[in-house]
Amino acid sequence: MKLATFRHQGRTSWGVVGDGVIHDVGAVLPQLLDLKSAIAAGALDAARDAAAGAPTIALDAIEWLPVIPNPEKILCIGLNYEEHRKETGRSVVGNPTIFTRFANSQVGHLAPLVRPKVSTDFDYEGELAVIIGTSCRHVSKDDAFAQVAGYACYNDGSVRDWQRHTHQFTPGKNFVGTGPFGPWMVTPDELGPIGPQRLQTRVNGQVVQDAKLEEMLFDIPTQIAYCSTFTRLEPGDVIATGTPGGVGAKRTPPLWIKPGDVVDVEIEGVGLLTNTVADET
Amino acid sequence: MKLATFRHQGRTSWGVVGDGVIHDVGAVLPQLLDLKSAIAAGALDAARDAAAGAPTIALDAIEWLPVIPNPEKILCIGLNYEEHRKETGRSVVGNPTIFTRFANSQVGHLAPLVRPKVSTDFDYEGELAVIIGTSCRHVSKDDAFAQVAGYACYNDGSVRDWQRHTHQFTPGKNFVGTGPFGPWMVTPDELGPIGPQRLQTRVNGQVVQDAKLEEMLFDIPTQIAYCSTFTRLEPGDVIATGTPGGVGAKRTPPLWIKPGDVVDVEIEGVGLLTNTVADET
Repeated sequence: MKLATFRHQGRTSWGVVGDGVIHDVGAVLPQLLDLKSAIAAGALDAARDAAAGAPTIALDAIEWLPVIPNPEKILCIGLNYEEHRKETGRSVVGNPTIFTRFANSQVGHLAPLVRPKVSTDFDYEGELAVIIGTSCRHVSKDDAFAQVAGYACYNDGSVRDWQRHTHQFTPGKNFVGTGPFGPWMVTPDELGPIGPQRLQTRVNGQVVQDAKLEEMLFDIPTQIAYCSTFTRLEPGDVIATGTPGGVGAKRTPPLWIKPGDVVDVEIEGVGLLTNTVADET
Repeated sequence: MKLATFRHQGRTSWGVVGDGVIHDVGAVLPQLLDLKSAIAAGALDAARDAAAGAPTIALDAIEWLPVIPNPEKILCIGLNYEEHRKETGRSVVGNPTIFTRFANSQVGHLAPLVRPKVSTDFDYEGELAVIIGTSCRHVSKDDAFAQVAGYACYNDGSVRDWQRHTHQFTPGKNFVGTGPFGPWMVTPDELGPIGPQRLQTRVNGQVVQDAKLEEMLFDIPTQIAYCSTFTRLEPGDVIATGTPGGVGAKRTPPLWIKPGDVVDVEIEGVGLLTNTVADET
């Protein structure tokens, strides 16, 4: 099952993605305020059942919003593919590198990917996002996948000079409009085991990142176990699991994305997330 | 005016702190869900007016909660006093160092300051917290103080080994129960200009940090201008403005706080925040 958050005729809702349409589950289960609430209520099976009787809207008529527009936390795993670690010149480390994004940096599928006024060092980072399904702490690796509600494509858009103002990445990872997340999340039963799926990032159709999910240095159970040691994870929380090699900053010359460029993040079995770069207005 | 968030007889509310009592404004202005909502609604003057007719509760009968239990963002300024920068061996930088905390790491005045199971390298960091009053972006330094709703004491409790697992501070700054914030916020009209106020941290009564707020390397207008360049600040957002020299990790031997230790963060004109360390249960 694929679930998405969207806006249509001024109303924000969520639903189940079908063949060319979205089943507007939010319209028939109004007690569930949003997709995050539905996950928290353990109501995704109810959503599946309700979808059949829900009104449908053509996919080309909706505005896609971030899969979870309002996560309490967005944890990002840095340097989690060997080729990317090498290209950044960073040392091998024994634990995941964790930085964060704020929810207001996110945008949906097809929304403008916003290059800020203050920089042209604007870069893509295609990633798999994990959406947490439970309130959990001190999760063992063995129990980790049981805490996952779904998976989605993420573009951890990065303003490289601001990322490197100091040793902490926060500013360059949090510009408004730089975090595409979508179009939808796919549930684990539909995706199957994580590993062989190919993750590709393309700029104007040219492949710039290409890896398999099994190449992650710290796998998803390790990420969930580690993060849940310090924080309590909550339904709707997002873990952006890291980006493969090939970022624009490490190319010669650098490949900065600029207004008009079309950036795709595609993960086999998960989806295709497309955004066009636009200048901040 | 001093404003606080509290729990009493199972009910969470907020109000105005008076002489030995809190005026339960939440009980008489129920349309304002919490202190963050009151700030967002520009209703602090209304809260002042309503306090006179609100029921009062003795301060020793309430459970203090974090001043803002649910900020959308907590931005922390690292290395913002020269003595602390020097003791950490970090280079001089031209921009503020920004890391983040999640809201669920916070606790109120007198609540246990939780030392996690996984580490004994547990440290204090006394700080002034700024509470944002408006939704704002691209704020100039000249306009920065106009975006401030109030000030409070903060203890940016740090699990040092986890902070240094990698170059990103997130894990060590986000353990549950490590971020005391309170007891209240004081409004700018009551505090007056930031500068001469003394900030002290004490462990079991012994002074371990002692500085004046004017010693910040990046002042509050610079912090607000910088942060609002990349993110939109919202009412109730918190900026923890950095800690002075004297942290436990840089002492010989290190001064790790341990169960039973009483940690005070006191700022002249702002308040006294006291917490006792307890082991994670």
